[in-house]
Amino acid sequence: MIVRKLQDAEKTDRKIVSEGWDSTRLCLKSDNMGFSFHITTIFRGAELPLHYQNHLESVYCVSGEGSIEDLATGEIHEITPGVIYLLDKHDKHILRATQEMKMACVFNPPLNGKEVHDASGAYPLDADEVSGK
Amino acid sequence: MIVRKLQDAEKTDRKIVSEGWDSTRLCLKSDNMGFSFHITTIFRGAELPLHYQNHLESVYCVSGEGSIEDLATGEIHEITPGVIYLLDKHDKHILRATQEMKMACVFNPPLNGKEVHDASGAYPLDADEVSGK
Repeated sequence: MIVRKLQDAEKTDRKIVSEGWDSTRLCLKSDNMGFSFHITTIFRGAELPLHYQNHLESVYCVSGEGSIEDLATGEIHEITPGVIYLLDKHDKHILRATQEMKMACVFNPPLNGKEVHDASGAYPLDADEVSGK
Repeated sequence: MIVRKLQDAEKTDRKIVSEGWDSTRLCLKSDNMGFSFHITTIFRGAELPLHYQNHLESVYCVSGEGSIEDLATGEIHEITPGVIYLLDKHDKHILRATQEMKMACVFNPPLNGKEVHDASGAYPLDADEVSGK
C-alpha cells in the first residue's frame, strides 16, 4: 500500500507548473498501477489546445467551471463539478477555464512524471521520472 | 470523446448502492480506456473490510474524513481531502469513515459495472455491464 498527500506532493517535483496549468502527479508509472493519477489545476482564463496522441485520458471536474471544445465535431461541452470527459479517441480539443478548475486526471499508459505538452499538445512517452517516493 | 455528468449518472444503473457505501461508475470497461473511474461515497460510520484480489485500485479523497488500516502491517493512515492510497499489492484493508467521504476511485482492470463486494471483500471479474450510455 502506498499513501500520499496532495499537500505534501505539491512541495516536490511531483508538481509540474506550465503555461495556464499545473499538475501534481500522485500516482505514476513507477507505482506499477497501469495508469497514472494527477490533480490538475487549470488557471482562470486559460485556453489550452491539446492533443494526447500517445495517451488515453479521463478528466473529472472536482471544482470550477469551463468548457471543452471537440475539434473533430466543433461541439462545446460545459464543464462543471461532476462532469467527466474521456478522450477515448485521442481527441484533439481545446480546454478553457472561465473559473479556476481542479481536475482529477487519469492517463493510460501512465506518465513517467516530468511530461509537459510538446508543440502538438501531446505528452511524449519518454519523459523523465520524478525523484521523490 | 465521451462526456458524462455525475448528477445524471446517479439516476441510472451506473449508481450501485450497498452496505455503507454507494458508487457511481462514470467510466467502465466498455469505454475501452483500460481502467474504470468511479465516484464513491463512504457513509459516515461505515467500517468496510476490503480485499481486491482481482484488481489494483487507487483512491483519492475529495472530501470527508476517515482512515485506512493496512492489515498486513497494522498501520492506520488518516484519510482527509488530498490523500490518495494505492492498493498496489492487492492489500487487505479496513476502510472507516468518521465523516461521509467522497472518493475518486480508479480500477485496473476496469470494472464491468455491476460489481458489489463478495464475502472476501473482493470484486469478481465477471460482473454484469450497465445498460446506459
